Amino acid sequence: MTSHPSADDLEELAARLTGSRLLTDRDVMDGYRRDEAHLVVPGWPCAVLLASSVEDVSAALAWAHAHDVPVVPRGAGTGLAGGATAVDGCLVVSLARMSAIREISAEDQYAVVEAGVVNADLGRAAVEVGLMYAPDPSSYEISTIGGNVATNAGGLRCVKYGVTRDSVLGLEVVLADGRVIHTGRRTVKGVAGLDLTSLFVGSEGALGIVTSATLKLRPQPPVDPVTIVASFPSLRGAAEAVTAVVREGIGPSLLELIDRNTLRAINDWKHLGLDDGTEAMLIAQVDSVDAKERALRVEAAFEGAGADVVAVSSDRTEAAQLLEVRRLAYPAAEQLGQCLVEDVGVPRSRLPQMIEAIEGIGAAHGVTILTVAHAGDGNLHPTFVFDARPDGEAPPEVWAAADEVFRTALDLDGTLTGEHGVGALKRRWLELEVGPDSLEVQRAIKRALDPKGLLNPGKGF
Amino acid sequence: MTSHPSADDLEELAARLTGSRLLTDRDVMDGYRRDEAHLVVPGWPCAVLLASSVEDVSAALAWAHAHDVPVVPRGAGTGLAGGATAVDGCLVVSLARMSAIREISAEDQYAVVEAGVVNADLGRAAVEVGLMYAPDPSSYEISTIGGNVATNAGGLRCVKYGVTRDSVLGLEVVLADGRVIHTGRRTVKGVAGLDLTSLFVGSEGALGIVTSATLKLRPQPPVDPVTIVASFPSLRGAAEAVTAVVREGIGPSLLELIDRNTLRAINDWKHLGLDDGTEAMLIAQVDSVDAKERALRVEAAFEGAGADVVAVSSDRTEAAQLLEVRRLAYPAAEQLGQCLVEDVGVPRSRLPQMIEAIEGIGAAHGVTILTVAHAGDGNLHPTFVFDARPDGEAPPEVWAAADEVFRTALDLDGTLTGEHGVGALKRRWLELEVGPDSLEVQRAIKRALDPKGLLNPGKGF
Repeated sequence: MTSHPSADDLEELAARLTGSRLLTDRDVMDGYRRDEAHLVVPGWPCAVLLASSVEDVSAALAWAHAHDVPVVPRGAGTGLAGGATAVDGCLVVSLARMSAIREISAEDQYAVVEAGVVNADLGRAAVEVGLMYAPDPSSYEISTIGGNVATNAGGLRCVKYGVTRDSVLGLEVVLADGRVIHTGRRTVKGVAGLDLTSLFVGSEGALGIVTSATLKLRPQPPVDPVTIVASFPSLRGAAEAVTAVVREGIGPSLLELIDRNTLRAINDWKHLGLDDGTEAMLIAQVDSVDAKERALRVEAAFEGAGADVVAVSSDRTEAAQLLEVRRLAYPAAEQLGQCLVEDVGVPRSRLPQMIEAIEGIGAAHGVTILTVAHAGDGNLHPTFVFDARPDGEAPPEVWAAADEVFRTALDLDGTLTGEHGVGALKRRWLELEVGPDSLEVQRAIKRALDPKGLLNPGKGF
Repeated sequence: MTSHPSADDLEELAARLTGSRLLTDRDVMDGYRRDEAHLVVPGWPCAVLLASSVEDVSAALAWAHAHDVPVVPRGAGTGLAGGATAVDGCLVVSLARMSAIREISAEDQYAVVEAGVVNADLGRAAVEVGLMYAPDPSSYEISTIGGNVATNAGGLRCVKYGVTRDSVLGLEVVLADGRVIHTGRRTVKGVAGLDLTSLFVGSEGALGIVTSATLKLRPQPPVDPVTIVASFPSLRGAAEAVTAVVREGIGPSLLELIDRNTLRAINDWKHLGLDDGTEAMLIAQVDSVDAKERALRVEAAFEGAGADVVAVSSDRTEAAQLLEVRRLAYPAAEQLGQCLVEDVGVPRSRLPQMIEAIEGIGAAHGVTILTVAHAGDGNLHPTFVFDARPDGEAPPEVWAAADEVFRTALDLDGTLTGEHGVGALKRRWLELEVGPDSLEVQRAIKRALDPKGLLNPGKGF
């Protein structure tokens, strides 16, 4: 049972804090109740903690544990699955102010950063010592490492460099009762005990609150990436081009697909003069030392699969221009109405089937769906567009279409979510993917670490 | 409480099996009581199951759960930490006969294999479809995927391609009560629920028995690896060469160090004519498309750090010859006496300090220690050599020296075990590394998944 703390209880919490701020004003708290999953209805927290230290997070969780108060952690609130949505009576713990880069070791190629460090800030700090931080979710200029870790965020470069979990060496975690543990290590390898690090990565705040992470940095690519863009007169051709690039082991550092609906939305908005006959666009990057030769191989693969126009960047500025279309995809969708951005994944060879199925489902339900895909990973973002309603809900046909998209992904040996997480939005489908016994194992682990069920209730598994 | 099953109980188990064999003869069972951790004293199992199907493993675990019989899983028994040592009254479950490669997808670059598949057999099957299975523990010709998964095995190539966990997409696991779950997926990315896959990888049979794994395959290197070997007149010079290769982002696919004591043992045994003044040898491989250019950069880094002789392979045969010295390291140590092969790791920049400390500890305790290292990972294998004793124990000075080596690794921000696991051998040191609260979290997870404590008791965390 959770409870609503009294004013005295909140004063007790405030007295335990050393540098953090505690907000209780409704107008101010309103900015900390939601993430970018607009369809999830938030509750009202009892208070919002703007945490400034692991000690204060620890004190707050010990307090919440003693008073049976649910706790909802948040970073920048850029999540798309509702993982950071407040529930009634909860303590929201914002890690955004814990933004110190505690240490960067160029020699051992790691960084120790607090949860509130913005992904791009770490990226820039790594570049300064000649290294890179690879994971780059689309939100990288605003999202925080803590949120990236909580959702195991992906990104555009992960087709070559892996997802967030692949870059996490260790974590500092505050447990449900306020104890602080350190998982993982600073070494490249290590097998001492259970891999708690991987368990906490992607656990969406339901097992503990990550306050700091030790992250792997890696050498920068030896050359500026070369970008290859191609338009295709058929979706299947584009999908076959993706398969060819993967099969031939070309190893792109980025391989994105944009479907016809998205291209039209971008064109209608920005008047880029895109050809009406284009059914799909592919954007690839290669960043190896032999990037020029690999770019030729990508070009050949695209042409072999029926591309009608192929452009290759000759410098960094041109590369950025070619990528621009991809960056416009989501804002262009938002021009059309309210958006539900989805996130299914399939084995790469199933990409054509999945894309065609999405088109069919949209048509059958009369729902506009714009799809972009991290095609090299088989990870698709079908975006459902609809007119906003006064009740904040999506029309039933949107949910019906989404339900069918999820089930189709699973039928194709795929997953409900490639990188956004389950959050609050996808809980009702999770058992379909993992099965009842696996779900029960996950819940047993949850009970073991959070016996009172106070950490981010109603989210994740 | 565990109990010893009666003859009737064992008959009940036998009746539940469909194709597996159940051994109860002591002479036959004797071959299934130990792994390669010779210092761990095994108990006597009540029976050994030679499992042939996941259904039989499930039936056996349900039976063991009902009768409170401990269960010790094993693959090929090549482990070095005693993870597969039988305990009295246990049921040993051997997965070695479950050796089917169920599926290989060249297009989606994965394989689904049973736990008993030998690592090298999968490697050869992958090569047949133009791909590779990257993890290559030294035991790869005999060890099984199940054991590799249970210990999160490393290997020589993991400096470039990662450890076993980095290649596991999903698992089929039999839980303590016999339920079968499937974790993970066939897609490249996925964040639906907790990462049970990573949790089971490296859990040393204490959370469930892995019966099958979906493993990532990757494109073969575009060229035959070029091998570079160098001898150094000082250990510090060799260690500095390692740091230089890493710092410069050359990205070797193998980077091994052999210390003076090991070189002498090899020379005394095989009379290779190695120079007496050599204090260390480094062996590197590069396998990128620009391998020749990278080999030159490795050569320059080695020479810059004071190498006195550098040899570069010009073909596959020469490469194999240059690697041969590394393969002789362990058999050469065995010529000198009984061996305790250890497995500490440190951040790479600490490698010189760690190697020097090991030399000092050996000298202080009068113990012969031969060290080889997966230097590119900062993972060292100090091998303690001593005269076999009738009681099978190691002399106290060996344990005293090992204890000091472990503590030194931890003092240098390192780990007790880079790739062998905790097993039975290192349990008493584990808390030193992970701390009491993290250990308690691990044990809480263990209790959640195995409330009766029947799975591989006394091993791991």
